[in-house]
Amino acid sequence: MSDKKKKARAGRPRTAAAIIIGNEILSGKIADQNLVVLARVLRKLGVQLVRTVVIPDVLETIVEEVRAAAKAHTWVFTSGGVGPTHDDLTIVGVAKAFKKKVETSAELEAKIRAAYGDRLREGHLFMARVPKGAKLVQTEEVPWPAVVMKNVWVLPGVPEVFAHKMVLLEQLIEPAEAFESVAVFSTLDEGNLKPYLDRVVAEHPSVDVGSYPRWTDPHVRTKLTFDARDKAACEAAARAFAESLPAEAIVASPGPTPTAT
Amino acid sequence: MSDKKKKARAGRPRTAAAIIIGNEILSGKIADQNLVVLARVLRKLGVQLVRTVVIPDVLETIVEEVRAAAKAHTWVFTSGGVGPTHDDLTIVGVAKAFKKKVETSAELEAKIRAAYGDRLREGHLFMARVPKGAKLVQTEEVPWPAVVMKNVWVLPGVPEVFAHKMVLLEQLIEPAEAFESVAVFSTLDEGNLKPYLDRVVAEHPSVDVGSYPRWTDPHVRTKLTFDARDKAACEAAARAFAESLPAEAIVASPGPTPTAT
Repeated sequence: MSDKKKKARAGRPRTAAAIIIGNEILSGKIADQNLVVLARVLRKLGVQLVRTVVIPDVLETIVEEVRAAAKAHTWVFTSGGVGPTHDDLTIVGVAKAFKKKVETSAELEAKIRAAYGDRLREGHLFMARVPKGAKLVQTEEVPWPAVVMKNVWVLPGVPEVFAHKMVLLEQLIEPAEAFESVAVFSTLDEGNLKPYLDRVVAEHPSVDVGSYPRWTDPHVRTKLTFDARDKAACEAAARAFAESLPAEAIVASPGPTPTAT
Repeated sequence: MSDKKKKARAGRPRTAAAIIIGNEILSGKIADQNLVVLARVLRKLGVQLVRTVVIPDVLETIVEEVRAAAKAHTWVFTSGGVGPTHDDLTIVGVAKAFKKKVETSAELEAKIRAAYGDRLREGHLFMARVPKGAKLVQTEEVPWPAVVMKNVWVLPGVPEVFAHKMVLLEQLIEPAEAFESVAVFSTLDEGNLKPYLDRVVAEHPSVDVGSYPRWTDPHVRTKLTFDARDKAACEAAARAFAESLPAEAIVASPGPTPTAT
């Protein structure tokens, strides 16, 4: 990519959606572990994750969600439904979302045959299916490829494997200006802090101010976060907020605080 | 409710959607803990959770999601965005979804005044706001009420408080026939199991068959689950599946297995 193109792309806000597919999450059999892992990697890459949906193993639902998300966002990441069994519908769903057929990837088939050797059964080859036109993405560190159809990354649901695939994102998605975040910790509750928060929100419109009550922390009642792409803006907002409060309402924190600057 | 009405209601499939609201989940600052807690309680009550969406603190997004989910499902449960600060938009969002105004609940205001006493600030009273026409639901065990607008339960995002509110659901939502589940554990991987699974899926259409690979378990390669409202149907499907496999492919399990019947 040319420097000019890179620059243009870096200027555009890049958004993502996640689609977590699996009856087992909605029935409570399994607690999802993948959303927070993906969220943190995207955050580091400067990509804003703006929506996540958890849906069952129902083909039409997968098709609708993938189609809508692929249109609305720079990238879509699916989690789950990529094995060889009857409830693994993601590949077919992604293909249908783009009105493509499903075909067997010769490259994936060769890899599967090599991996299973004599233990290979017909069932294993179901994992060689891809939407027609999909790319296989891999790196030296992640030699087993992920299927990427246009802007949709098809990732496996098993948490260990999902986490491993994050290396692919980190290696293949060009990082933009990261999100910066500064935290302030207060002994006051949200009701007390409200007028101070309202003021800093009004006076620092470029900064996303978050307020998180802590119910079980004996020292901190509320954690406040000040987020923006521009670190100086985060720090200015955090400092203005902290200085507007009585000194005893601020708790020295483990993270970087405005009082440390 | 009359017995006749109860019976009619019990026959209808009852579905739910969850809406998890908060920038902190999508940015990866905090891992959601509430979905699995809600999913398990609903499952026990015989309510099918069919969709969950995680959205940012954006009013229009909240309005759209609540409106669509309230129309499509028996119940909707929101998590988060109910404090008194600028990023707490759920009450306003739910009100707008039903084209209602936001008003101060005298009952909630009295409770807040009693709880805070001398420490009360104007900010705390923001937590007395409700959509016009909302009900406050509470029980002896959960004396702090939850706001319920039509079929939308507005629940707090703080995990300890969210979990506590589950008692309200268990006490106030009439349980229907619960979901039953039988598990079978196999030494074979999904590729090997595929033909056996395809057969049991075809021959037991009333049973929802799930297949979950285990990547780090030295004894079990795949967990299979057989779910239905009818326990005998689950057991029959699980037994048929287990008996179709070579005996050494089945692992005695900690849970109830078909071999135990």
